[in-house]
Amino acid sequence: MSSNWFTEQHAASGSSIGYRVKERLADVQTPYQHIEVWRTTDWGNLMVIDGCTMLTTRDNFLYHEMMTHPALYTHAAPRDVAIIGGGDCGTLREVLRHPEVASVTQIDIDEQVTRLAEKYFPELCASNADPRAKLLFDDGIKYMADAAPGSLDVVIVDSTDPVGPAEGLFNVAFYASCFRALRAGGILVQQSESPLVLLDLIQSIHKSMREAGFSTARTLPFPQPCYPTGWWSTTLARKDGDLETFRERDAAAKPFATRYYNAAMHRAALAQPEFMRAALPA
Amino acid sequence: MSSNWFTEQHAASGSSIGYRVKERLADVQTPYQHIEVWRTTDWGNLMVIDGCTMLTTRDNFLYHEMMTHPALYTHAAPRDVAIIGGGDCGTLREVLRHPEVASVTQIDIDEQVTRLAEKYFPELCASNADPRAKLLFDDGIKYMADAAPGSLDVVIVDSTDPVGPAEGLFNVAFYASCFRALRAGGILVQQSESPLVLLDLIQSIHKSMREAGFSTARTLPFPQPCYPTGWWSTTLARKDGDLETFRERDAAAKPFATRYYNAAMHRAALAQPEFMRAALPA
Repeated sequence: MSSNWFTEQHAASGSSIGYRVKERLADVQTPYQHIEVWRTTDWGNLMVIDGCTMLTTRDNFLYHEMMTHPALYTHAAPRDVAIIGGGDCGTLREVLRHPEVASVTQIDIDEQVTRLAEKYFPELCASNADPRAKLLFDDGIKYMADAAPGSLDVVIVDSTDPVGPAEGLFNVAFYASCFRALRAGGILVQQSESPLVLLDLIQSIHKSMREAGFSTARTLPFPQPCYPTGWWSTTLARKDGDLETFRERDAAAKPFATRYYNAAMHRAALAQPEFMRAALPA
Repeated sequence: MSSNWFTEQHAASGSSIGYRVKERLADVQTPYQHIEVWRTTDWGNLMVIDGCTMLTTRDNFLYHEMMTHPALYTHAAPRDVAIIGGGDCGTLREVLRHPEVASVTQIDIDEQVTRLAEKYFPELCASNADPRAKLLFDDGIKYMADAAPGSLDVVIVDSTDPVGPAEGLFNVAFYASCFRALRAGGILVQQSESPLVLLDLIQSIHKSMREAGFSTARTLPFPQPCYPTGWWSTTLARKDGDLETFRERDAAAKPFATRYYNAAMHRAALAQPEFMRAALPA
């Protein structure tokens, strides 16, 4: 085939995912990582960090909706939210759709992710000027370690894979910081990779969350075509509360449009495939 | 990277999926198609037909379980089943796990698919000698056109994409044959491609099924890493009956092991992502 393709070969799974591309729109080395943006033929724009696909225009709605709405409709009254990572601002935009939310602080270490998102994924940054939003470019681990105890309702860890800059976001010490910063009933959300390939990582995330003090943890799988295996997950942990029930009536009457999430899909995402049920504590 | 990869570039979606491979185990041109089998580093064996990935050892359980158990646990008493296509015999094996089933006829046009599956996916062919199973190598369209009216409870169309040999399996005339061959309460199952990329095809499948006489149709999405976008679907249609309810108690007490399917995942698969709910009739 004479066309050009960007392909991510994922060593851990021995599989690859690629996109037919027209041109490279950006190629930036920051102090933290190497960021590229490509224009594709069918998926809109594609952001790549250190060779790993981060998002495409076409399918990021799956990830961003599932990283936010299940947690926000599980919490009884989510007022104060922190996002660690999330520099493309898509998670921020979804959080701000909830009228109960009074403040969202996004802490991404690399300002260039946000600057490139503003240019190449402007729809994701549409809410950046919302007076409830605060964008910090700083170390998320340090931010959570310094956060005032009981000052947050939801912490969303919207990070890259657990290597490089994001490695410190997948351990007991970090989760303990989040636990301390959360109020009673507070929820921690962690992107948790492919259930098919990284089930052992998901098990270790559950274990670390419990060691950090969370009473319960739950992994919600969802499709995400641009990530290895096309199947992804988010793991929620809760301080003093369950994750089985949520504000179903509010979710069914949500005052904003979504493309994947709805009350039925929330219930559906709580169901566990047989191999996950066997591998993860209830 | 110095390793070798088999990559399927999917023109319709402008995306590709590849596997790291060790060697090609088979390379056969049949009267119908070109079949290859590769040994991969992480996914077991990989079967490719006309350049399109058909299955891998590692992830075919998702497809085969979702093509069978939802239909068989929706039908009140599935006794006689036909499988159109399905030459790798994985669907056959799952159907035969149901003790209520008295006969299963598999009609695949290409005997070589089954011969290669016996050699390279022997676990999928483990039930081929079951006395309830009959393997025919013939034209499935003609088979259904000639089938005795009211002779079947479930018809599963486990075909390749709607081009080439499988093109005639996606239209009103074929669905009308299936409708006629089914008894009251009978269920037709059709693999129905990626919800994200081929939603218009799924809409046309629903339309054709209704035109053929089926009273209701329903698309169940599920993850399938080896198919384009990693997200796939099965569409069920029913003659005189609904698809919302199923034998939940029987599914919860199923007398066989699965890796994905269970009663909760069946309920979950009936939930529709917001964009599918908007696009497909209830």
